[in-house]
Amino acid sequence: MTARPVPADFAGPPAASRLAAWYAADREARPARLERLRARFGAAGVDAYFGVRREHMRYLTGFTLADGEEKVAGNSGQFLVGGDEVVVLADSRYTIQARREAPDARLFEAYRDLPRRWPELVASAGARRVAVEAGFVSHTTWQRLAEAAPAVELVPVEGWVEADRAVKEPAELERVAAACAVADRALATLLPEIRAGVTEAELALRLEWLIRTGGAEALAFDVACLSGPEAALPHGAPGDRPVLDGQVLLFDFGAQVAGYRSDMTRTLFVGEPAARDLEVYGLVARAQAAAIEALEAAVGGQGGEGRGATLPSGRAIDTIARGVITAAGHGDHFRHGTGHGIGLATHESPSLGKLATEDPLPSPTVFSVEPGVYLEGEMGVRIEDLIVLDAAARRVERLTRFPREVLVVGG
Amino acid sequence: MTARPVPADFAGPPAASRLAAWYAADREARPARLERLRARFGAAGVDAYFGVRREHMRYLTGFTLADGEEKVAGNSGQFLVGGDEVVVLADSRYTIQARREAPDARLFEAYRDLPRRWPELVASAGARRVAVEAGFVSHTTWQRLAEAAPAVELVPVEGWVEADRAVKEPAELERVAAACAVADRALATLLPEIRAGVTEAELALRLEWLIRTGGAEALAFDVACLSGPEAALPHGAPGDRPVLDGQVLLFDFGAQVAGYRSDMTRTLFVGEPAARDLEVYGLVARAQAAAIEALEAAVGGQGGEGRGATLPSGRAIDTIARGVITAAGHGDHFRHGTGHGIGLATHESPSLGKLATEDPLPSPTVFSVEPGVYLEGEMGVRIEDLIVLDAAARRVERLTRFPREVLVVGG
Repeated sequence: MTARPVPADFAGPPAASRLAAWYAADREARPARLERLRARFGAAGVDAYFGVRREHMRYLTGFTLADGEEKVAGNSGQFLVGGDEVVVLADSRYTIQARREAPDARLFEAYRDLPRRWPELVASAGARRVAVEAGFVSHTTWQRLAEAAPAVELVPVEGWVEADRAVKEPAELERVAAACAVADRALATLLPEIRAGVTEAELALRLEWLIRTGGAEALAFDVACLSGPEAALPHGAPGDRPVLDGQVLLFDFGAQVAGYRSDMTRTLFVGEPAARDLEVYGLVARAQAAAIEALEAAVGGQGGEGRGATLPSGRAIDTIARGVITAAGHGDHFRHGTGHGIGLATHESPSLGKLATEDPLPSPTVFSVEPGVYLEGEMGVRIEDLIVLDAAARRVERLTRFPREVLVVGG
Repeated sequence: MTARPVPADFAGPPAASRLAAWYAADREARPARLERLRARFGAAGVDAYFGVRREHMRYLTGFTLADGEEKVAGNSGQFLVGGDEVVVLADSRYTIQARREAPDARLFEAYRDLPRRWPELVASAGARRVAVEAGFVSHTTWQRLAEAAPAVELVPVEGWVEADRAVKEPAELERVAAACAVADRALATLLPEIRAGVTEAELALRLEWLIRTGGAEALAFDVACLSGPEAALPHGAPGDRPVLDGQVLLFDFGAQVAGYRSDMTRTLFVGEPAARDLEVYGLVARAQAAAIEALEAAVGGQGGEGRGATLPSGRAIDTIARGVITAAGHGDHFRHGTGHGIGLATHESPSLGKLATEDPLPSPTVFSVEPGVYLEGEMGVRIEDLIVLDAAARRVERLTRFPREVLVVGG
């Protein structure tokens, strides 16, 4: 069992100067991001790209919507990348913001009436064959755009910007790390407040407060705080259940700093741990360690094949973590993937799971490694860290610094 | 100028017994909701309905996703309403929840692989012609479903459940009212803490805390707190700007109680109000009052046409509010709609705006009335209340009870 971490163990919230530097780095990186996108135009025979995902807006144009704001923003933030310009749509509620945040883009006013304005938009950009984010544009909108400008062909594309976003720039990794530090500090601050009788919902709200007043602009997602049998729900929500002595207490949470997110899970022990629970914890920890060690071996940091060698696939890493758990007879109790990429979205490429591609992992990139074992009606354990993988730098680094050893609280 | 409201002026948070009663009322109401949906099948020539909106999941099946959770839930919560059963999709992360929340539905396991499982799903329900929420299913998914079961016809439909949801049951209106009371109390509690020097972001976070510890399970949407010139952004976000004496301070916020939402805007005055600002405030207040008086006249509460008379359209109410503002020369400074329905979603049918339908408003229903005047670079005023309209009961009632008279804070 490890000593309790304290807030001072972790980096403090980002200073205003770092926020300004990240903003500048983004603006500087955008032309290259756009060129990577345009480099795909030729093979697909398109001359423009129409995007609607909020992560893509920010990545390519700077225009920022909060999570979920797409639902009320109408067409605001949607964008068209042409051969030599970027056009950002905004209605009157968003024009001031668009000018501020996307100063390098041309503004095009549209208010929930994109099909009506589509012919003018594509004509203004000289587009005749437009790649469209077909996985995020509704069937209805697709049909209406097609009817509005029959001469302009819509080409369904998926995964273009997602693949580019999986490869992280230094300023992107810095922000994920800063978000991890905010989360680390918040949990360290919360530890002394955890005791039998406090409810999951109270702890979740308090942790959220610590994150949002501790340097994050938002949560990455709603805090999960699940005790005892509830920890067996990989996607449960905190309830009015009081934390009890002798139970596990699982926190799954993340911060958002300058657009970039963290994601971490820790399973703590309230009072004296039961032998069975410690055994499950040890198993999950070994599965996680095996996955991370395989990554280290692959980049040569630990006597592996080294620089330039082919990286393992996300599927291969999942197989390694899953193999440890299956060998211990708990294969049926680990029913989600081993990890996921993270950045502007909480879940993004690459995927580490049974159904993931067998292509080598991208690099540099960052993803979670989060095996778990869930015994329905009894307890669950998940341990989740974010790992930076950078083959060229022979780097496999854990960005979540909160200890992952057995930690007893509530005493 | 009015006396400052205090928290005790408003109803307290809902007791557990009311939450249980609402849960029971929903479960009891679901068969009738499903029958209303099925009543549309004949005319459209379909034998099933495939839904993906989170609001529709909860309304028709009981399965509950948090706002934005659709993005990570895969197909979980999506549902098929057949002639005599409801099928709810869930992957392993959500099966326990689905059994708890949608006990009257048949569970169908699917993990982000709906097209592969689609033939089995539709066959199990005996469906040959399926109405699909085409405005919310992506073009890609639509194509894949069509290819997966070519013999099953997909029929794009929009607005069916939305139209049904616009007509509110008593237990739905009770929850909107309870959410309004939580918001009212929270703002009343915050009032003494507002003073020059506090930042918008601090006030927004504090108001959120008061809402979420005061009886709400969540915010209805991110709190807007905008001071001075920022109040001219109808969709701005709180910043590190300190509140200054002599400025307006606009709060736009809402609570969620047992799934149902509130939405309210108040524009306060920090220190001595400027004459111009008071004038704008008075104008917006008159515009709002004119719209509400027209509703009262329509239901006969104030000497109007009375029971059974045709209700005005959302467009007509918008014209009335807009007319007051335009007559004062500020027509160009009121560039959004006058209001929107609210319930499980913050924005839903009916719409009160220039582009709204000319059909009579539904009844009973609840919607916002929220005219505004925005002087870019200077200031903005919006006053927003939620109004219940029930023609049969001759009821036009404001659910947001916080005073709308000029209120000076910071002194």
